[in-house]
Order: sequence, then C-alpha cells, then structure tokens
Amino acid sequence: MPEMTLTTLNWVPDLPRGYVRDLRVRWALEEAGLPYRVASVPFTPSVPSRELDAGQLALQPYAQVPWLTDGGQTIFESGAILLYLGERSTALMPTERRARQDVITWVFAALNSVEAISLPWSIYQFAGDTEQTPGRKHLDAILKARVHYTEQVLAGREWLAGAFSIADILMADVLRLVHRFDGLADAPACRGYVEAATGRPAFAQAYSDQMAHFAKAD
Amino acid sequence: MPEMTLTTLNWVPDLPRGYVRDLRVRWALEEAGLPYRVASVPFTPSVPSRELDAGQLALQPYAQVPWLTDGGQTIFESGAILLYLGERSTALMPTERRARQDVITWVFAALNSVEAISLPWSIYQFAGDTEQTPGRKHLDAILKARVHYTEQVLAGREWLAGAFSIADILMADVLRLVHRFDGLADAPACRGYVEAATGRPAFAQAYSDQMAHFAKAD
Repeated sequence: MPEMTLTTLNWVPDLPRGYVRDLRVRWALEEAGLPYRVASVPFTPSVPSRELDAGQLALQPYAQVPWLTDGGQTIFESGAILLYLGERSTALMPTERRARQDVITWVFAALNSVEAISLPWSIYQFAGDTEQTPGRKHLDAILKARVHYTEQVLAGREWLAGAFSIADILMADVLRLVHRFDGLADAPACRGYVEAATGRPAFAQAYSDQMAHFAKAD
Repeated sequence: MPEMTLTTLNWVPDLPRGYVRDLRVRWALEEAGLPYRVASVPFTPSVPSRELDAGQLALQPYAQVPWLTDGGQTIFESGAILLYLGERSTALMPTERRARQDVITWVFAALNSVEAISLPWSIYQFAGDTEQTPGRKHLDAILKARVHYTEQVLAGREWLAGAFSIADILMADVLRLVHRFDGLADAPACRGYVEAATGRPAFAQAYSDQMAHFAKAD
C-alpha cells in the first residue's frame, strides 16, 4: 500500500513555526498511527497573491498548505483532510452514526464558529494592530462571545464529542493560537483543554516533526 | 417518517434579511426535494453574549441559528447540516468516492479559505468601518487574494466539483455577501457564478420563504 504524502512548505519564518497547518494533519496521522511521508514546496508569501505554477494551483487552488495525496487523490483544506483521515481510523472518529455526526458538527464549529473569528483576530495581533475602530470593536466582542460559549461547553466535558477526535485536534489547535495572544485569560476550561490536548504524545511528535522540518532549511 | 425541522430566528432586522444562514439549509432542502418544517426561537442580539436558556444552548452552543433536528438528532453549523443533507440526496452530493471527496473538500474551501476572511471583512463593511489600519490592510489583501484564486477556478468550470452540489450552495452564498459590498468588482467569473447559482428555482424558493418568515413577525 503506498503511503500517504503530506505536502507543506519547505521553510517558514520563525513566527508561524509550530502553527503551520500541516501540524493538524501530522497530529491526526500520529494519533491514528498511519504511515506517511512529507513533501515540500518552496515558501512564497501568499499575500499579495502570486502566480504559482499551474501544477501547484491545481493541487491547492488557494496557494496554501497543506494538502494530502493518497493514491491518485489529492485533498486540500485541513478540515477536509482530517475528515478524510477520520473515516480511516476510529482513533480519530467513531463509526456509529450519531457519534460520528457529533464529531462532524464539532469539526465545523471549531473552524467556523471559533476560527472564522479568531483567525482574523490573530491577523490583527500578528500585525500589532490594537486600534479600536468600530469594526475592530465588533470583531473583538464576537471573539469574546465565542470564547465564552466554548468555555461553557468545555467546563462540562473533557473532549467535544465523547472520546478524543479530529474535532479536538481542530478546536485545540484553534484555541492554542488564541491563547498565544492571551485571548483565553478568562477561560480556564479552554486553557485546561488546550493543555490536555497538546499534552498528548501525538501532538508532541507532530510539533517536533514540524519544527525539525522547517529547521532543516534554515 | 417524521419531517426534519429547521430552527431559525423568529425575526431579524432588515439588514441581515436574505442572508441568515437558514437560507443555506432551505436551499439544500429545496434542491433535494426533502420535506421539512420551520421552527423559531426569539431574536436576541448575539453580541455581547447573552445567557440564553440552557435548553437552547444545548441545541446550539454558540447561540446561533440554524440547527436541524432529524428524529432525535440535532445538528448545528450550516456546513455540518449541508454535509448531513448531502449524504441523503444525490442532488446535493454524489456517492462515488472521489467525486464525493471533491465536494467535501470544496465545502471546506468555501467556508475556510473564503468565508473565514470574507466574514470578518463583511463585519467591517456592516459597521461602515473603512479605516486602513495595519491589520485591516492585511485583511483586505487576503480577501483580494482569495477572490483572485476563486476567480481563477471559476473561470474554468461551471460548478466547483463536477455537478452542482452543497459546495456550490456554500460558495455562492459566501460570494453573494462579498458581492453585496462590491468585493467582486474584479471577478467577473465569480459574479456569473453567483448569478447562475442564485438563478436556480431552489434558491428563489428558499429566499422568498426566508423573507416571508421574517416578515410574518414584523
């Protein structure tokens, strides 16, 4: 059986190291014990948009990483890749219909109710932009609300949907970046959850593998 | 067989009418010809966060709409609901393994490569906030890049993943809001795609049903 290939960048600056999204895929693959190899494409700033070669855009139309190749099929978007892997290992997603649906629901909640707000917020944090314009006030208020609601959920359960799953890989990785910019100050359950998730051996392996991968090209 | 129940708000102000996300679910249900009924919960501003009753938060932990109830199961997040419906109708998602995976990949791309940027951008547009702070410049540049890449894809195909699918419902609905704020000025293929998607009878039905639903409570 040919191994799956995870493609990421060959190098990134220090700031995003440990946060590039191939980490989510590495983490899932490690949790599931699925063999894989890593391939690289050259680092190019994605903003402003650059014309990448057509071959790469055919594999990842938004000029991002990661993507996963399995046999002849290529899957991009970390959420789609994790769902794909979830179908291949009960360590990532249960097969029972309702339990599986709960995991899928929380996959979307992590990405679309939390990250869709925390990602732009972190863009402002990365830029060191603290100016409280009307739109920014609204963005900050929504993030605060989303963290508040996530806190209420996590105060009452260890993992989002029964056992540890791909939903937790995504939610923990999303909250980890919020925490980096001190956005979990009022959310002890979220902080505990991030600590528990990132304390798993599969995360540690994925993280050190990503750091080593980028360091190779320094 | 009990019908599915779609829950939305009983009323919203004029500005978001036609854009509340129950539209995506109505649209999918209409495309598939699946019977459903609509239920309502009272309108409450979601920011700043309010304590909703625990029963409602158990169904939608982020105090948002919509959610879908089917038998004893409740699914929230429009992306998760559409994927759930996609498994029930080939009018929404093919069953062949690779074609199905392409649809799922584009579902995530619509929500996470486009909407995760266009949503915060639209928050600024709704707030009338045009101040070009460093973070805002970065946000605008990323949106521009994401529209650019989407334009390259849509210039070469009618629908995202072969036949019309849930991925198109999501991408078209996401781009529709960008277009409302004139964000597709340089993207003729995106504009044509939105026009083709929203020209479908199922969209027209879903849209007029949502407008009528909110008008009832005026």
